[in-house]
Amino acid sequence: MSIKLGPNRYGKSENRVVRVTKTGGVHEIRDLNVSVALSGDMDDTHITGGNAAVLPTDTQKNTVFAFAKEHGISSPEAFGLLLAEHFVDSQPTIDHARVSLEEYAWERIVVGAGNQQHSFVRSNQEIRTARVHNNGDNAWVVTGLKNLVVLNSTGSEFHGYIKDKYTTLNEAYDRVLATEVNAEWRHNTIPDDWDKSYLDARRCLLEAFAQTYSLSLQQTLYAMGNRVLDTCPEICEVRLSLPNKHHFVVDLSPFGLENDNEVFWAADRPYGLIEGSVLCEDAPDAGPAWD
Amino acid sequence: MSIKLGPNRYGKSENRVVRVTKTGGVHEIRDLNVSVALSGDMDDTHITGGNAAVLPTDTQKNTVFAFAKEHGISSPEAFGLLLAEHFVDSQPTIDHARVSLEEYAWERIVVGAGNQQHSFVRSNQEIRTARVHNNGDNAWVVTGLKNLVVLNSTGSEFHGYIKDKYTTLNEAYDRVLATEVNAEWRHNTIPDDWDKSYLDARRCLLEAFAQTYSLSLQQTLYAMGNRVLDTCPEICEVRLSLPNKHHFVVDLSPFGLENDNEVFWAADRPYGLIEGSVLCEDAPDAGPAWD
Amino acid sequence: MSIKLGPNRYGKSENRVVRVTKTGGVHEIRDLNVSVALSGDMDDTHITGGNAAVLPTDTQKNTVFAFAKEHGISSPEAFGLLLAEHFVDSQPTIDHARVSLEEYAWERIVVGAGNQQHSFVRSNQEIRTARVHNNGDNAWVVTGLKNLVVLNSTGSEFHGYIKDKYTTLNEAYDRVLATEVNAEWRHNTIPDDWDKSYLDARRCLLEAFAQTYSLSLQQTLYAMGNRVLDTCPEICEVRLSLPNKHHFVVDLSPFGLENDNEVFWAADRPYGLIEGSVLCEDAPDAGPAWD
Amino acid sequence: MSIKLGPNRYGKSENRVVRVTKTGGVHEIRDLNVSVALSGDMDDTHITGGNAAVLPTDTQKNTVFAFAKEHGISSPEAFGLLLAEHFVDSQPTIDHARVSLEEYAWERIVVGAGNQQHSFVRSNQEIRTARVHNNGDNAWVVTGLKNLVVLNSTGSEFHGYIKDKYTTLNEAYDRVLATEVNAEWRHNTIPDDWDKSYLDARRCLLEAFAQTYSLSLQQTLYAMGNRVLDTCPEICEVRLSLPNKHHFVVDLSPFGLENDNEVFWAADRPYGLIEGSVLCEDAPDAGPAWD
Repeated sequence: MSIKLGPNRYGKSENRVVRVTKTGGVHEIRDLNVSVALSGDMDDTHITGGNAAVLPTDTQKNTVFAFAKEHGISSPEAFGLLLAEHFVDSQPTIDHARVSLEEYAWERIVVGAGNQQHSFVRSNQEIRTARVHNNGDNAWVVTGLKNLVVLNSTGSEFHGYIKDKYTTLNEAYDRVLATEVNAEWRHNTIPDDWDKSYLDARRCLLEAFAQTYSLSLQQTLYAMGNRVLDTCPEICEVRLSLPNKHHFVVDLSPFGLENDNEVFWAADRPYGLIEGSVLCEDAPDAGPAWD
Repeated sequence: MSIKLGPNRYGKSENRVVRVTKTGGVHEIRDLNVSVALSGDMDDTHITGGNAAVLPTDTQKNTVFAFAKEHGISSPEAFGLLLAEHFVDSQPTIDHARVSLEEYAWERIVVGAGNQQHSFVRSNQEIRTARVHNNGDNAWVVTGLKNLVVLNSTGSEFHGYIKDKYTTLNEAYDRVLATEVNAEWRHNTIPDDWDKSYLDARRCLLEAFAQTYSLSLQQTLYAMGNRVLDTCPEICEVRLSLPNKHHFVVDLSPFGLENDNEVFWAADRPYGLIEGSVLCEDAPDAGPAWD
Repeated sequence: MSIKLGPNRYGKSENRVVRVTKTGGVHEIRDLNVSVALSGDMDDTHITGGNAAVLPTDTQKNTVFAFAKEHGISSPEAFGLLLAEHFVDSQPTIDHARVSLEEYAWERIVVGAGNQQHSFVRSNQEIRTARVHNNGDNAWVVTGLKNLVVLNSTGSEFHGYIKDKYTTLNEAYDRVLATEVNAEWRHNTIPDDWDKSYLDARRCLLEAFAQTYSLSLQQTLYAMGNRVLDTCPEICEVRLSLPNKHHFVVDLSPFGLENDNEVFWAADRPYGLIEGSVLCEDAPDAGPAWD
Repeated sequence: MSIKLGPNRYGKSENRVVRVTKTGGVHEIRDLNVSVALSGDMDDTHITGGNAAVLPTDTQKNTVFAFAKEHGISSPEAFGLLLAEHFVDSQPTIDHARVSLEEYAWERIVVGAGNQQHSFVRSNQEIRTARVHNNGDNAWVVTGLKNLVVLNSTGSEFHGYIKDKYTTLNEAYDRVLATEVNAEWRHNTIPDDWDKSYLDARRCLLEAFAQTYSLSLQQTLYAMGNRVLDTCPEICEVRLSLPNKHHFVVDLSPFGLENDNEVFWAADRPYGLIEGSVLCEDAPDAGPAWD
């Protein structure tokens, strides 16, 4: 039997870089977690341990920090594009780079009438994400967010589904719908302002969640993706992963109490998980964008 | 050798209760994690397995959900006080109750000009906490918060410390100071409005962090506690646990780059941990408040 | 612009099922976390909220527990195969099922000379995993493990790599090599005994890690995959994801102490991450096996 | 109102030190997470930011690593005792030191007939813990373990408890009893061999769990503590925190299936939590041992 090396990549993960920019006494910060994954002809290091084609992961780490100084961090996407291009262009043995980024947002601490110019509090509402690919000829960018937890306390139903011998669920005509939004969206053009593009897409997701009268979490998912595509011309595909954070109505009848959707048990596991893609009919081929 | 039972308690932990209140079409939600711990004369259940003195933890769970319906949740503190009193007063075998609560805050989703009346997004900035004790005669309340991450990008120094044979640290005259605030504060009187009291104390912590020119994280800790006590007459003691979230200046000189406190590596472990109490001279005895 | 629904799936995740089998007074347990994901023509539920094609995730959960009773759990793979086939065969609207499983191992508690027949302690060394796909015509099985942490305290070097302007790493001729093995392997035939097959593959991974004199973590990765394929004829592809758990030699020279690879700092982030596939030249097409 | 500084401490937490000892080609490793907390007259650093009394946490970290070289790590307890004594004895401003330690166990990887002399796999069954206090005059040692998950699939009942208006629980005459053992024990004398003492106490906990026919988890808790005290003369007090990891019998009757304690849902939250101390009548005063 003959054995061979298949697809592979390697890199330095979770470089936590914080960049402070100072304009007079006013500071700005960007706080990223950057992971690099490179690939190319890496047969030697796998088979013989010959490392002549290997740019060490330690060097990749150094590059992340040096680039933060040399180029600043205008956005996760722009920073990822610079890094990915650098690795592919500067190293003959590297023919593909993926840079994955998380961004943690900070707000200024407000004191009295004004803001503190160099004091910040972390805003943990969601984590912004980006993935950038560069293969020497093209670049691809996917932006996203995760950990954004939302809830509608009414305006959701679920009925009309298949009943089989294992079905015990009662149909619901008014229920809580809650989920933790994990979304990513693919760009077909580079927006002028990555931060504005991010905020536009994020707003679409929240608004569509709030405004959709929902007959299934799938319907809400589709509405959220649809809203982003309808609103943001630079985006051609949205992928969503929505865990159904079940809020069960507690049966209070043993205690002589009614419960008209007022008291819920927020359960952990198991949970429904709804995943789907919404895309433009004319979206270009995704290539490696989602890898 | 003779063996005996020492201090003990038991209860149901992490009851995740969500309470929706509806005024016309406008919904409000409170989202709590409630843990109950009861104690009394429990020798029998430990030594012979006789459970005549035991109120089952399952019943405690039911009580949490039933009380959410019967009494509503006006605040974590008020809800905890009700529950603790109930267990001690209704069960002859229970002479002490502790109720620990976490609250997760939600904001309305803003759509266009207005708010959605039943749509919410979780605001993860910090977790609000409360601990209530009731021994049949008295009640004690400790309020707090955790996971509130703050950073000053300048305005911090550290020098003049002991040097011994294991010291290698360089003195710092301008450094980043960042921490994750874990604070709890003890009340000597019951405030009219627990939510307002919480927000006042939270604001004091943030403002003192931002406004203190810091020569040590200890100095910042003391200033934070002091500010709360100075501002909130209902509070007599503040306890803080502040991990020093180290942001190390990256040495970029090998690459011919200066780094004037612009690029940092945000490290995980090890970390400094500064813990301390700040209290009023005339604070009453804490009793079991901090247990 | 026209918008359409792309690939999607839905199901109940993290059904924690524990199955006890009793032979006389001797009990056996299997402890699984089962996640189901189904797909088919789900346009209606996404676009109009019509649920006529939807088997509720609640029913999927019930099925997992009912099958544990009806069929027992002989192995994660066999249990996953049964479930996946059931969903596709019993529901006309479902044309593809994926069942993902984690298994937590338990050992008997040994007391004195013998074992306790119904007393167990959880063995947390690794989590066993399985993924099963069924599309109505074929089934695919991937088995794996995660969280298996291994370390060689010598027998590892790293040198001969690319140096560029961002390189500061010193070449290493004797270093600690540690990783957390995350591995999955694809079967081309169904083994007689899934548990034996699992243990064989696991042993190969450990032995190859221990016996490989390593010039790069990539070389170790390839050796591990190669060993599995060489030893287990039912397996045609191995995919490995190996974080380099860096153990840095602490510089003790400021204290007048040598450190001949005796004292290490076990770092968290950043870390190298090496990912790769090793497969047989004649491995059949993977189809959806890895999705 | 006058405000003052209350109890405080500071130190470096989570120093992850791995120590390799080499005897010929045979290596041994000990893998610790060490946290130091010091206290003394620290008014100045809190109130004025004067650091003349402060031994930096960075120096504490260096000391941990240097001591690992100079003294080796014969056990977590012995290493903690050395460190705590050092800080108190060498620094006039430090009058109390607490050293908290976690140890992660490793086993040799077995290959064929023999063991690999420098290859290890981490054994995650439990984390061993130790806490050492030194106040200049005395030292105290508490040893423990956490994350040890155990289960009896029969031999447990629960009935005869209080019923009130919120009680719905059915009495149980055969149930699964599972918990995650978190235990700590206090020494009144220093054992000759800390590792042997640890293994003895651990064995007692497991055996008592397995051999106790249980009418309540409290009864099991007491039996576990009692067994340790009965067996290990160097130990005078045991504290246990036992979450009741509920395994609910799944109701399969809607599917026409019986469930004679064969299929369980392993739930996450809420959970019962049983905490208690078992001690010798003549145990000396605990002093700061448990702080």
